[in-house]
Amino acid sequence: MSDRVTRKGKSQPQKEEPKQAKKQKVQKETYDVVQLQDIAHQLRIHSIEMTIASNSGHPTSCASMAEILAALFFTKAGMHFNPKDPGNFGNDRFVLSKGHAAPILYAAWSMVGYIDSKELLNLRKIDSLLEGHPVPKLPFVDVATGSLGQGLSVAGGMAYSSKFLDKINNRYWVLMGDGEIAEGSVWEAAHLASHYKLDNITAIVDVNRLGQSEETSIGHDVNVYRKRWEAFGWKTLVIDGHNLNQLTDAFEQCRNVKNQPQVIIAKTFKGKYLEMENKEDWHGKPVPQAQVEFVKKQMKQQGGFTLTPEVPTQIEKPQQSHFTLDVNYAVDAKQSTREAYGKALVGLSKTDANQQIVAVDGDTKNSTFSIKYKEAVPTNFVECFIAEQNMVGWAQGFSCRGKVAFASTFAAFFARGFDQIRMGGISESQVKYVGSHAGVSIGEDGPSQMGLEDIAMFRTIPNCVVLYPSDGVSAERAIELVANHKSPCYVRMSRPSLPILYSNNEVFEIGKSKILKQNDDDKILLIGGGVTTQEIFKAAKQLSEQDQIHVTVLDLFSVKPIDHDGILNAANKTTLKTILVVEDHYMEGGLFEAVSSCLSLNNEVKIHSIHVDKVAKSGTPAQMLQMYHLDAAGIIARVKSIIQ
Amino acid sequence: MSDRVTRKGKSQPQKEEPKQAKKQKVQKETYDVVQLQDIAHQLRIHSIEMTIASNSGHPTSCASMAEILAALFFTKAGMHFNPKDPGNFGNDRFVLSKGHAAPILYAAWSMVGYIDSKELLNLRKIDSLLEGHPVPKLPFVDVATGSLGQGLSVAGGMAYSSKFLDKINNRYWVLMGDGEIAEGSVWEAAHLASHYKLDNITAIVDVNRLGQSEETSIGHDVNVYRKRWEAFGWKTLVIDGHNLNQLTDAFEQCRNVKNQPQVIIAKTFKGKYLEMENKEDWHGKPVPQAQVEFVKKQMKQQGGFTLTPEVPTQIEKPQQSHFTLDVNYAVDAKQSTREAYGKALVGLSKTDANQQIVAVDGDTKNSTFSIKYKEAVPTNFVECFIAEQNMVGWAQGFSCRGKVAFASTFAAFFARGFDQIRMGGISESQVKYVGSHAGVSIGEDGPSQMGLEDIAMFRTIPNCVVLYPSDGVSAERAIELVANHKSPCYVRMSRPSLPILYSNNEVFEIGKSKILKQNDDDKILLIGGGVTTQEIFKAAKQLSEQDQIHVTVLDLFSVKPIDHDGILNAANKTTLKTILVVEDHYMEGGLFEAVSSCLSLNNEVKIHSIHVDKVAKSGTPAQMLQMYHLDAAGIIARVKSIIQ
Repeated sequence: MSDRVTRKGKSQPQKEEPKQAKKQKVQKETYDVVQLQDIAHQLRIHSIEMTIASNSGHPTSCASMAEILAALFFTKAGMHFNPKDPGNFGNDRFVLSKGHAAPILYAAWSMVGYIDSKELLNLRKIDSLLEGHPVPKLPFVDVATGSLGQGLSVAGGMAYSSKFLDKINNRYWVLMGDGEIAEGSVWEAAHLASHYKLDNITAIVDVNRLGQSEETSIGHDVNVYRKRWEAFGWKTLVIDGHNLNQLTDAFEQCRNVKNQPQVIIAKTFKGKYLEMENKEDWHGKPVPQAQVEFVKKQMKQQGGFTLTPEVPTQIEKPQQSHFTLDVNYAVDAKQSTREAYGKALVGLSKTDANQQIVAVDGDTKNSTFSIKYKEAVPTNFVECFIAEQNMVGWAQGFSCRGKVAFASTFAAFFARGFDQIRMGGISESQVKYVGSHAGVSIGEDGPSQMGLEDIAMFRTIPNCVVLYPSDGVSAERAIELVANHKSPCYVRMSRPSLPILYSNNEVFEIGKSKILKQNDDDKILLIGGGVTTQEIFKAAKQLSEQDQIHVTVLDLFSVKPIDHDGILNAANKTTLKTILVVEDHYMEGGLFEAVSSCLSLNNEVKIHSIHVDKVAKSGTPAQMLQMYHLDAAGIIARVKSIIQ
Repeated sequence: MSDRVTRKGKSQPQKEEPKQAKKQKVQKETYDVVQLQDIAHQLRIHSIEMTIASNSGHPTSCASMAEILAALFFTKAGMHFNPKDPGNFGNDRFVLSKGHAAPILYAAWSMVGYIDSKELLNLRKIDSLLEGHPVPKLPFVDVATGSLGQGLSVAGGMAYSSKFLDKINNRYWVLMGDGEIAEGSVWEAAHLASHYKLDNITAIVDVNRLGQSEETSIGHDVNVYRKRWEAFGWKTLVIDGHNLNQLTDAFEQCRNVKNQPQVIIAKTFKGKYLEMENKEDWHGKPVPQAQVEFVKKQMKQQGGFTLTPEVPTQIEKPQQSHFTLDVNYAVDAKQSTREAYGKALVGLSKTDANQQIVAVDGDTKNSTFSIKYKEAVPTNFVECFIAEQNMVGWAQGFSCRGKVAFASTFAAFFARGFDQIRMGGISESQVKYVGSHAGVSIGEDGPSQMGLEDIAMFRTIPNCVVLYPSDGVSAERAIELVANHKSPCYVRMSRPSLPILYSNNEVFEIGKSKILKQNDDDKILLIGGGVTTQEIFKAAKQLSEQDQIHVTVLDLFSVKPIDHDGILNAANKTTLKTILVVEDHYMEGGLFEAVSSCLSLNNEVKIHSIHVDKVAKSGTPAQMLQMYHLDAAGIIARVKSIIQ
């Protein structure tokens, strides 16, 4: 019954270049194309039935990629993986960047035997892991997708990790929609993957022509895609994405490319083999039940599938180390917290026997001081150039491969990667973000370079730890804490050189603030972070010495989780039961609102705020702090007006 | 003295293609190259002196582009503009995307007579408009730059506006650094400009090889840039960026290209004509005073410049109209607020005699309902495809040209453009952002599609209005309000179909909430927005009817500015002086924290919160609301537990 053909068979429309054919002389695999085609049809049928059951979803977006998945999941040319152990570290990995095609991904994992076929009909149900877009609660998913254009970045970090750090011979297959190629993040990812010659990535673009609301801007003009990918340094193959011979041939070719990532531009049709093939207005809509029969009629064998994927050598995922740090500052030392970041990474590397710490940066390493880590452990530092979205994606990729991934740039420029950070939150990825140059205290460079919304941004990420150190010691301890913490974390660093406030052995904890000054007759509680901790400390000393006004000084340190009890206790001990929060950040979503949320059920404590309340400008750091009353003088004046 | 040469002169290294030369037969302009070169050197000298005076800045990044600016500002081939009226609507516009080269931009505007040369030495000073990176407080600046890779997007929107809407014959010149070409936003912008055949944009890439912390990934391999830009559909010229003949020639060629944007890949050297030419480690550092003399020695004439720019016909910027809207819903109608967005735009267009409203979308127009505006006013709707960063940039470009620019996509996907939105805030640009599919109430699609941090994000933008309507009437009124409001604005729309709560003539105001239910014996105050306003309203009715528990219902509507007095008054009237905020958003930076900030100095009112407190998942909208206790049943249970 089966119509076995080789790659050279009659249904092969691509012209062969005789020279290449002679040179290669690789043993050609034969694939059971009839069975593969039937598998593709069965994947379509599953996708149709699943989305009918959930009454939502994207069956036509699944239909265009059914042959691609059949070839990927069921041939030696495609993915090598163990269907019984989808999370195994030695498997090839598949990233479905067009996450809305999730049903066919689940269907494929069902057809290789991992997911019970009955479970497929629980797609999008509240008690099922088969969500509308894939999430890494499933062991065959590394990162959440569904916000388009992000998959290739994450695969980049993973592929770099396999090739250069873990030296594992597995491959990364990324399936993208054609619409998402308009996302700039794709080109950031394409650029960096070719820069680092990641030959273990194969991207497949499912060029089905139709976007959500109209034809894509490029339509079926596959040559445009070819030129762009070639220009970005990729080995580029253009094929008929419904032709299983061309697909397996392309996969084999990709497996043989050295020092260059590969992309397969697969011309396909949305809704292929359905009655709504290549028709508009069918995006994201279940199709009628009759389509199941329509596809079934096109199958040759109706089941009895015998093909299985190639299983590679399995490898255990390495356990993460525990890191410790020696901190060593002279009492009268001065240092910026950003510089402490670089020092801390170098310090941590001394207990990083398996070199699990990986740092990435976006051409700011001499400002963020991640350059110190590059100098100390050059293999584990990756320059991502000026492309923050992709940098965040790469960091997530490293994290997926068990690395302790640090990503640094100016605090302001993490805004560029907010959607990637947001998706990382959904993935529960454990990247440690370190933002330098926070706040108006950077001075002359002006507002474009000032992170004034970074705390608000990172606080929105579920389970994200947000730390805000105020001197070299607390900065190094913050880095030590997040290196050992299993969640996304953000550490906010400042540009100015600051005096040391803490002793080298001071113990810091996530969720705990620090009292820097407290007496029984303190009138109010001052709360700051980073540079404003330094300013409230100065202000408190002056108030005490010159005006005999005593105030408590609390260094917030842990913005999220916040030290609810510590703050309330300190506030309640003040004679005026009053807090003044001083922050080099906008009020919205910053320290003031974080502290206020602790007081929601407290009817005794009042809370005042000094913050950046309008668009900033250029000036010296001191002038900037003064302009917003964030300096000691401004704080003193405010304290006096509050206590009067 | 002067060495006048034509474009065909001996210093012209580019090979001529005889065919083209025959075909064109354009009168060649002659330029005083000696004087232009001296002007370039004088621009260098200004940049050196300015950054010495400010003791910070990027003189070497200025030096690589001195010839480019000399040719742009002082020849007919370059920009046509009135130096006495830099903001004039008919001028060519210049966007310095590599904003850190601001000193040389200011120097050029000084040399054409607009800025006093003494003022140049106030660079980066607190009382000067000459900030470290350009901001539109200066009339020759359209948008703040300094976060790299954004200029081309804004120019795209402006160029589209001139070419297709205003039909003005001016041109847009965008100068980019080579490092910033790694930003994906550049490729989003490149793609859309060529898609819409914007022949009135000329981009110039200053390929000076050196980034901030190391060589760029592409270095001086200008052919890589050539291939990439050509593949993205641009007319691409590769020249020596220090050769004034090649520059003016390239500008003239660009002026003659039809239906295609043009890019000039200018190979340059960082620190050109300084002793630190082409040397690393000189990024962002003032150079020694001696460099002034070093450059001066290379000048031929030492001043007495006579060249002036070509002045085009001047055009007055149109005034923005005032828009009004008829709202018309049946009492028992049901509609989603996102659909009301499309209806409102169409309604507003009826009072938009000058067609100033422009709407952009990122291939979600059939979900955000901006498609209704496309159908009604097709000329003024621009599909930006799946590239949200560029979409935000284009909207800012339209706003720069006096348009009332609306940008819509899923609330979640505005995170993709946060850095552009942030920079738009610094520009004080007046884009109206409309985010659909906010919150877990979207249901089955799952967390990647749920905007749960959008309010926090937009609240951080200075002066940004944030409105959150809860039915069709308030949604249409919100759009009417923001259309007439001169600031950045965000309106949060929901996916589910919701009952009408308000009468058609209800008057809404920015900064005012709405009381939907209030009686003298109300125990507590419920505050919601959007879908949770509907749920608290349902809960209140049930509590009243079934349990004789009476509560006040407040629809927040205006999240920023917030109705401080309205909230406090309503809270104070409740017998328990207690608020319960219910929001389909994370707690951080959302409604609860916004409301809490109103209570900071109030020691009587307690405030409770129901919000989304963990990563969401797929399920029906009703199940999702139930899971987070955001539905009427959850609210009722919480109210009962609070009042007990």
